Amino acid sequence: MSQVAFRIRNELAMINGDFCGKDIVSLDQFARQDIEYLLPVIQHMKNLAVNHEVSHLLAGHLISLLFFEPSSRTFSSFAAAVKRLGGQTIEIQNPETVSSVSKGESFEDTIRVFEAYSSAIVLRHPVPGSARAAARAAKDIPVVNAGDGNNEHPTQTLLDMYTIYEQFGRLDHLTGLLAGDVFNSRTLHSLMRGLSLFNNNIVYLLSPPQLRLDRSDLAQFVKRGLRIIEIDSEKDIPHDCQFWYWTRIQKERFASLDAYAEIVAKNFTVTPSLLDTYASKNTILMDPLPRVGTIDPAVDDDERAVYLRSQIRNGLYTRMALLALILGKA
Amino acid sequence: MSQVAFRIRNELAMINGDFCGKDIVSLDQFARQDIEYLLPVIQHMKNLAVNHEVSHLLAGHLISLLFFEPSSRTFSSFAAAVKRLGGQTIEIQNPETVSSVSKGESFEDTIRVFEAYSSAIVLRHPVPGSARAAARAAKDIPVVNAGDGNNEHPTQTLLDMYTIYEQFGRLDHLTGLLAGDVFNSRTLHSLMRGLSLFNNNIVYLLSPPQLRLDRSDLAQFVKRGLRIIEIDSEKDIPHDCQFWYWTRIQKERFASLDAYAEIVAKNFTVTPSLLDTYASKNTILMDPLPRVGTIDPAVDDDERAVYLRSQIRNGLYTRMALLALILGKA
Amino acid sequence: MSQVAFRIRNELAMINGDFCGKDIVSLDQFARQDIEYLLPVIQHMKNLAVNHEVSHLLAGHLISLLFFEPSSRTFSSFAAAVKRLGGQTIEIQNPETVSSVSKGESFEDTIRVFEAYSSAIVLRHPVPGSARAAARAAKDIPVVNAGDGNNEHPTQTLLDMYTIYEQFGRLDHLTGLLAGDVFNSRTLHSLMRGLSLFNNNIVYLLSPPQLRLDRSDLAQFVKRGLRIIEIDSEKDIPHDCQFWYWTRIQKERFASLDAYAEIVAKNFTVTPSLLDTYASKNTILMDPLPRVGTIDPAVDDDERAVYLRSQIRNGLYTRMALLALILGKA
Repeated sequence: MSQVAFRIRNELAMINGDFCGKDIVSLDQFARQDIEYLLPVIQHMKNLAVNHEVSHLLAGHLISLLFFEPSSRTFSSFAAAVKRLGGQTIEIQNPETVSSVSKGESFEDTIRVFEAYSSAIVLRHPVPGSARAAARAAKDIPVVNAGDGNNEHPTQTLLDMYTIYEQFGRLDHLTGLLAGDVFNSRTLHSLMRGLSLFNNNIVYLLSPPQLRLDRSDLAQFVKRGLRIIEIDSEKDIPHDCQFWYWTRIQKERFASLDAYAEIVAKNFTVTPSLLDTYASKNTILMDPLPRVGTIDPAVDDDERAVYLRSQIRNGLYTRMALLALILGKA
Repeated sequence: MSQVAFRIRNELAMINGDFCGKDIVSLDQFARQDIEYLLPVIQHMKNLAVNHEVSHLLAGHLISLLFFEPSSRTFSSFAAAVKRLGGQTIEIQNPETVSSVSKGESFEDTIRVFEAYSSAIVLRHPVPGSARAAARAAKDIPVVNAGDGNNEHPTQTLLDMYTIYEQFGRLDHLTGLLAGDVFNSRTLHSLMRGLSLFNNNIVYLLSPPQLRLDRSDLAQFVKRGLRIIEIDSEKDIPHDCQFWYWTRIQKERFASLDAYAEIVAKNFTVTPSLLDTYASKNTILMDPLPRVGTIDPAVDDDERAVYLRSQIRNGLYTRMALLALILGKA
Repeated sequence: MSQVAFRIRNELAMINGDFCGKDIVSLDQFARQDIEYLLPVIQHMKNLAVNHEVSHLLAGHLISLLFFEPSSRTFSSFAAAVKRLGGQTIEIQNPETVSSVSKGESFEDTIRVFEAYSSAIVLRHPVPGSARAAARAAKDIPVVNAGDGNNEHPTQTLLDMYTIYEQFGRLDHLTGLLAGDVFNSRTLHSLMRGLSLFNNNIVYLLSPPQLRLDRSDLAQFVKRGLRIIEIDSEKDIPHDCQFWYWTRIQKERFASLDAYAEIVAKNFTVTPSLLDTYASKNTILMDPLPRVGTIDPAVDDDERAVYLRSQIRNGLYTRMALLALILGKA
């Protein structure tokens, strides 16, 4: 349906410097050079958006946003990305309105129906592997994973990497702190994979002892070349971190509320005094949001706090860049 | 509110070759010449969409999509049609968000409120006759029926007729097979009415004995000039059918699950071997979707299977054509 | 994010003839000269919309419509306003899809996330004071109150004032009838505040005795310069009213259904004969809708009935004007 020559893919294709027609399902499709190719395109999109430039890059294109579970932030970020580029959306935000599903239609058929109307599909789905299945069903158009359960959410990691890059001009030779639910956080795991594509990066992991990184995950990241140092106390945070990445303790992962309360009582929260004591004046403070007990609002006005400012906006610019690239428009 | 001179209509107007300002509520508004007028406009819309041409035909026009029951496929098809033509939509997908209704507002008032903002209203409603009632309430703008209960869904039939026409270049002298729930299927009944507007068409009806066409319906279609042949077994399907139209057995119509199970056990499903044995190499295989047990996915890659490809897309082109015509833009 | 120089506001800013960058949270921000500035801009927007002119005033701008409670009429009016001006919307219609809220995110964070993507936020929220809180959270872009509980709904009053102005060419020296639930109606209270900004206006209040204006409210309006006359029977309606403004008895406000039924039994309904007996031939009949028992549909075709015609459309034009003004585009 598009002038773009899409390939028939049995399995996920590596980007290999050519985004056009590719699905974006997993961070593992990206090599270092793909991310290096992407970063200036994100920068370009930022310039365009900041200046309220009217873009017609995606004019004549309809992008289906199929959200089988609610995610207002990711939904609006993708919707904004399409519309900022002059494209239009088909929006399914509410799983119950996918009426054909309730009549017993297969997931594959649903995807193929939307494929028939669209230049691309952005999919959010609670079941891990859904994005890959959708990419397989939609042979003629690209599919973008906007989060499939606890599996992957690649655009989150790409925006995080751009946020770091924008600040420091590089993705090598960085020292960062990853804190909070290191065991469960999809966001942290994915960022570690992203950082391991570059050289000489060190991450300090700070978590409650119950929520340490799984040993096999740790071994894997180390094998990929990332240097990992686990610490037990904020007193061990090195002063030269370029970034702190804080994640909420995910209540829904705990078997009992008591176990959750015990951890939260230890107050895994960034406060102004924590920041002033252990961060440098250039350290940026990131959070994938929502923050629930992770960062004291008193920190918001600190210049180093990027979570409610550039980090969110970079999500918009990153999605603009990816959509333009896979549709052969950038 | 529009430059188009809309007529005040007490009852549904026949199209009579002039779509401008007309409601599209029932297939019975269409005469043969109206469909003949419509077909090349659909073809034009197809060319426009396939080439990703940016159309501004509906620029400055807002179309309200009022879906009082979920129907993701029809909803997205209409939304895509408006947007492809450069128009914009007011989207009400969720009946509970029509808050005024829950406060006790009459259906007529709700329609008139949306009329005030819109160039046209597309209505989906579970109650038969709603589209006609809406057309009566909205005196100044056209109303399009996107399905009113088990009553009418005229754009489905028009897209089906275009799909057949596109393949064979005619709507006369056709032989078709209509299979599945011949008793209940609104889609099949409506297609028979459409085919009866043309000459020398024959349809074979294949259904479980409990789901045969009602005798008075049969008499009516025959009176309209359609030749109908009822068959009991796939062995009686003639080999020269131009199209097979398969519909699902509608579970929700059965008093007991046992009665449903008994019929479904007989396996009213199109398989590759059924197709190879009884269809010709030019027979197209249609299904209004969702298919639930009607067509084996192994058939999907067969060139004759149009249900997930041109049939869906033709729905988009048909709705583009109708909207442009009733708004005086084509 | 905008070229517009927004001010940092600790509290609500008066408009003072300069709408650019201002929040629109309360009618109390408006002085007489602000409304006089606004009226011809609304008239301009009306001309633009009536002629289906394609406007690009808001091209490149995304407006977030955050509806934390359903309100189909107000929602579609704002959506239509943005789209008619060539802008685009981020639409959150269903409170449950604001997923981050259900994960425990603060209201302020939610607002700031949408702020990052948007040129303005339109907020509907059940909690009084929400709009003000949102305006405080979103420091860089304007927030428009689309109704915050029983507190304020300023665009409703502005459209009502435009509707009267359009008919009579003035907002001074008017006599009006306000009827129905005078005690509870936010709409009536707000209109009285609006009318009190102008000179020599008289309002007759007609309500069941249980639903009279609160004495302190009455004193306040009188102090502002409005002349108020309470009447008990339609027989006391003066014949020279420029407008009748009718509001429904709000069932949900009554402790018991019996108390409600007792009042409704008294038939507080406008009928053709009531209108013919007590209104003049120039009196316009207004209702904020939905009307539930307030106006007999037999009145709808009377030329003086503006509630389903110009009053609704003026809502669209008023919102177009306000959005254009606060974004520095008109």
